[in-house]
Amino acid sequence: MTHEQLFQIIQKKRSFLCIGLDTDIQKIPAHLLSTDDPVFEFNKAIIDATHDFTVAYKPNIAFYESQGPKGWESLGKTVDHIRNTTKDIFIIADAKRGDIGNTSAMYAKTFFDTYDFDAITVAPYMGKDSVSPFLAFEEKWSIVLALTSNQGATDFQFLEDKASGKKLFEKVLTTASGWSSKDQIMFVVGATKTESLTDIRKIVPDHFLLVPGVGAQGGSLQEVARFGMNEQCGLLVNSSRGIIYASKAHDFAEIASQKADEIRKEMEVYLKQNNLI
Amino acid sequence: MTHEQLFQIIQKKRSFLCIGLDTDIQKIPAHLLSTDDPVFEFNKAIIDATHDFTVAYKPNIAFYESQGPKGWESLGKTVDHIRNTTKDIFIIADAKRGDIGNTSAMYAKTFFDTYDFDAITVAPYMGKDSVSPFLAFEEKWSIVLALTSNQGATDFQFLEDKASGKKLFEKVLTTASGWSSKDQIMFVVGATKTESLTDIRKIVPDHFLLVPGVGAQGGSLQEVARFGMNEQCGLLVNSSRGIIYASKAHDFAEIASQKADEIRKEMEVYLKQNNLI
Repeated sequence: MTHEQLFQIIQKKRSFLCIGLDTDIQKIPAHLLSTDDPVFEFNKAIIDATHDFTVAYKPNIAFYESQGPKGWESLGKTVDHIRNTTKDIFIIADAKRGDIGNTSAMYAKTFFDTYDFDAITVAPYMGKDSVSPFLAFEEKWSIVLALTSNQGATDFQFLEDKASGKKLFEKVLTTASGWSSKDQIMFVVGATKTESLTDIRKIVPDHFLLVPGVGAQGGSLQEVARFGMNEQCGLLVNSSRGIIYASKAHDFAEIASQKADEIRKEMEVYLKQNNLI
Repeated sequence: MTHEQLFQIIQKKRSFLCIGLDTDIQKIPAHLLSTDDPVFEFNKAIIDATHDFTVAYKPNIAFYESQGPKGWESLGKTVDHIRNTTKDIFIIADAKRGDIGNTSAMYAKTFFDTYDFDAITVAPYMGKDSVSPFLAFEEKWSIVLALTSNQGATDFQFLEDKASGKKLFEKVLTTASGWSSKDQIMFVVGATKTESLTDIRKIVPDHFLLVPGVGAQGGSLQEVARFGMNEQCGLLVNSSRGIIYASKAHDFAEIASQKADEIRKEMEVYLKQNNLI
């Protein structure tokens, strides 16, 4: 998918929501546990109920991996179900991978070939050749960690480079945006760090940002839209727990649908304010 | 496993070798491809032939993940086979994981609970709370990326912090060594960066270093031992392709055994020179 196509889906759905499928078998409704594949049944119900309101799904791979081989089957079925349900969707493997070249090539094969993802999140620490193998797949995206939403972000990401005066996360934005075009590179910027969004937009005015941290982690959608939106929206704002675990009863999918549509409606306001729809 | 126990295995085996099980189905001998689980059959033969010469095995998870659910079955069987073959062994999941706390907890569960690894490699970019969930498992290790063996290491790892004058990888060593004791934290330092080992030993004199890059990537074992060895050895030197793919014929395991013993013999010399055996 290209940058332009992603923007068209945003305009069509009047939404820049990404739903995080962080499906934890400990947290899904009890009545699903007797099915053959509770994780997939949960995801299927969530997808069927929310796909009109979201432009992206983002399974966090940790939750699937922790279930062993069965978890990877649930993941594969989930990706296939999304593809069979709608064409207007962007699917992100939240995997935060990155290794030396021949190994990253294996990861790229996993997520772009074995599984049909559009994008993968990658850690920048090992530099260009740890990300290049992902970029070798046309119309597939690498979403590079820049400024993350967690407390530990302050350990290294704000370290100030003596030579350039830039902070580490700013160096990552500057350097990694040169690794390919805005059709293949996106950045993770936490919603808990909105005070940095203005500066980030000076460095990467045109790139999409994947913004986690709205909801359970306390970030504000309004501020993200105010400081982060660009002429092609340029934002995918993720919510996981606030949607998929909004109810743990039989009505979980219906409540998830309501929550997703609530967020979408707020997003529609910001898209209109910026004359994007 | 404790730091002391790992050193005892090194003394007993007169080796500080780690064999990387980067098992690529495209590269294993043709006669194994007709078996039910070629990846496991390859690993089993390598393990049976080399376990006397190595103190650690390090499956790189990318290679298993790329095979889908079946790859994870091969991985589980591989770990079980190592455990059933020898007690004197340290098993590393080369996974380079790291995410926000609740997600890293899932990864920790995967590698320390679902699979019986002793250690996992982790990326430091997201800071302390992305590593803490791994450290919550007693006698399990986090091996933090510090200075990697690839070309892209120069993109960010040498950035010089204005406040402290330290390079990023030195900040990682200083900061992460405070996250737990030397019984739970180890660092990745590439064998292609031996000129930095003297400085690294000033920052972390007592910690184990996992050193990839000898062999296919061009690093020198002699230099690693010269500049990196401490009073309890403090080194695990990895070789992957140079051992497991030394032959692609029927004799692959026998040749792997010879290659591993060759390296072990060289290691024995360095251990003796340092009066550690």
